[in-house]
Amino acid sequence: MWEIDLEALESIAIGAGILGTGGGGNPYIGKLRAKRLLEQGRRVTIVDPAELPDDAYVVSVGGMGAPTVGIEKIEKGDESYRALRALERHAGVRAAAVISGEIGGANCIEPMIVAALAELPLVDADGIGRAFPELQMVTFFIYGVSPSPAALADEKGNEVVFDRVLDSFWLERIARGITSEMGGAAGYAFALMRAEEMRRTAIPHTLSLARRIGDAVREARRARRDPVLAVLDTTPGRVLFEGKIVDVLRWTTRGFARGTVTLAGSGPDQGSQLVIDFQNENLVARRDGEVVAVVPDLICILDTVDAQPITTEVLRYGFRVRVLVLPAPPQLCTPEALRVVGPRAFGYDVEPPGHTSGR
Amino acid sequence: MWEIDLEALESIAIGAGILGTGGGGNPYIGKLRAKRLLEQGRRVTIVDPAELPDDAYVVSVGGMGAPTVGIEKIEKGDESYRALRALERHAGVRAAAVISGEIGGANCIEPMIVAALAELPLVDADGIGRAFPELQMVTFFIYGVSPSPAALADEKGNEVVFDRVLDSFWLERIARGITSEMGGAAGYAFALMRAEEMRRTAIPHTLSLARRIGDAVREARRARRDPVLAVLDTTPGRVLFEGKIVDVLRWTTRGFARGTVTLAGSGPDQGSQLVIDFQNENLVARRDGEVVAVVPDLICILDTVDAQPITTEVLRYGFRVRVLVLPAPPQLCTPEALRVVGPRAFGYDVEPPGHTSGR
Repeated sequence: MWEIDLEALESIAIGAGILGTGGGGNPYIGKLRAKRLLEQGRRVTIVDPAELPDDAYVVSVGGMGAPTVGIEKIEKGDESYRALRALERHAGVRAAAVISGEIGGANCIEPMIVAALAELPLVDADGIGRAFPELQMVTFFIYGVSPSPAALADEKGNEVVFDRVLDSFWLERIARGITSEMGGAAGYAFALMRAEEMRRTAIPHTLSLARRIGDAVREARRARRDPVLAVLDTTPGRVLFEGKIVDVLRWTTRGFARGTVTLAGSGPDQGSQLVIDFQNENLVARRDGEVVAVVPDLICILDTVDAQPITTEVLRYGFRVRVLVLPAPPQLCTPEALRVVGPRAFGYDVEPPGHTSGR
Repeated sequence: MWEIDLEALESIAIGAGILGTGGGGNPYIGKLRAKRLLEQGRRVTIVDPAELPDDAYVVSVGGMGAPTVGIEKIEKGDESYRALRALERHAGVRAAAVISGEIGGANCIEPMIVAALAELPLVDADGIGRAFPELQMVTFFIYGVSPSPAALADEKGNEVVFDRVLDSFWLERIARGITSEMGGAAGYAFALMRAEEMRRTAIPHTLSLARRIGDAVREARRARRDPVLAVLDTTPGRVLFEGKIVDVLRWTTRGFARGTVTLAGSGPDQGSQLVIDFQNENLVARRDGEVVAVVPDLICILDTVDAQPITTEVLRYGFRVRVLVLPAPPQLCTPEALRVVGPRAFGYDVEPPGHTSGR
């Protein structure tokens, strides 16, 4: 059990950005809100998954909606909290802890705000281990937690409960439609589960991982060491490519920011080209035409100088970057998981990563 | 208290079609389903609003979605029933009776199916007294019944509960979005109210009215009397125009079937022209440029020969028709109601009908 302080918050925001693999939304605004709550004396206590009694209820909370909307439409701040309360009222239970649905990007921070407001501990784990765009892609659902009941709330006071849904794909579809009507952003509470189910399905210790990554980057920046390589001191992975962005193509289809970014190699990669396809997140990397990294592995584009993660919506010509590949957590590499989050689930007819080793 | 039999069902379907003023969906498929239930021995008992104890719960049930979708996507048949059950579970109460949200069109019949399945009485009243396209237009909400809790269900097994909504406009907006994701048609249960609130807000005896209208039309057809004039023996109103459809313009905006239909006069109206603007329902009629009838009054286009109501989606060149205007029920003519269902609510800068006398 440990507490989030301002230092931890700063590090986690960096680590969550890197684990977002280009998507998941920028944690910056959430960080400011969490900071303010901490400064007001609110507390965010982190518990290890093992610390909760088997029958304690755990609920995943966070924000739903296009990251681009989140930039212009600032949250009121209690959306996910009210979604949690609506879910509790509907189900007639009280949550003993909350958990992040998605460690990568903004949904790493959002559960801290709920934890502070509800005075509930936050579990050191999540349901994705990176960022993914759709609800059915969380491990809770992949490994059998019921997709209903669930709840959505907006900043205006609307609260909708999913009493029964056919499966997690239908939860995604209906919740996405409601989020759109609510103005493109909403707070969610879903995967109401016992701690025992959470331990069986969640990806453990990803909040600690985000913090370790962020700590390493910040320490390297201060010490004027290479902050990109510092990431690899904290988690398995490799430098895939070094170069300059020379082209970005974008198109938006069905609410996804799709496109490709092309890098011209420099240093050890001089003369080579890397093309990365993205769909909110970076999904497939091809080096001179050959696939060299693929989802669910994490393909992270970082600024060469300060290791700042570059999200897909801000990619542009001229950035000097290094691309890291971090192996996906083993929970994303089983046959059940690959059906939902493997390359074919995103429309790429390529093999999934050839390993199942985790970090 | 009376029972729906096959004769009553046949008459009500005709009356509901006429009260639909061009919209509300065709009651035909619903009629076949209700007929089958009656033939299987199910019963539909109609109660007068006055017959229910003050604190009994009443719920409005029906179908949501574009009428055009309903033609191709046949209901499974228990959507509204499951919405009712989801609402009851969520609120922790049991309904003592159901009521139609909208007497005009298909939602006159749908509550009969719920009444038969749930073995609950159906109240002889409704929330519109005609057809209107949006949920905030029901008198329950106009006169203060809470728009939440409410529920939607689809044929696949999804059930969504509106735990809290800001107002009835937000219920409409979010429910419309969900209905769209559910495939364009869903069953609803909303306006959970006590019988006392129902009596204060509903438009009474509209099921009887639909039956009386249908009985009169059928009797006139059998006796080879004028079935259109027979309608006016059962309810106040007047013949506005007689003629032939000579032009139909249509456009679809935001899910509404909009357009205008132009009639060239014949008989007493020879030499005149009537233009009717519609938006799902017939809204404004202009005779030689002058407004002669306007929503919320009922503008009904009937086939001259058999008084068959012609819905806006099947209007076409060559039909010989008579147009009736029936005065709106007084509950639609108050200042509160006109704000929501008056001509200005539909974007027409014309005065509402100059009377508040009901039928």
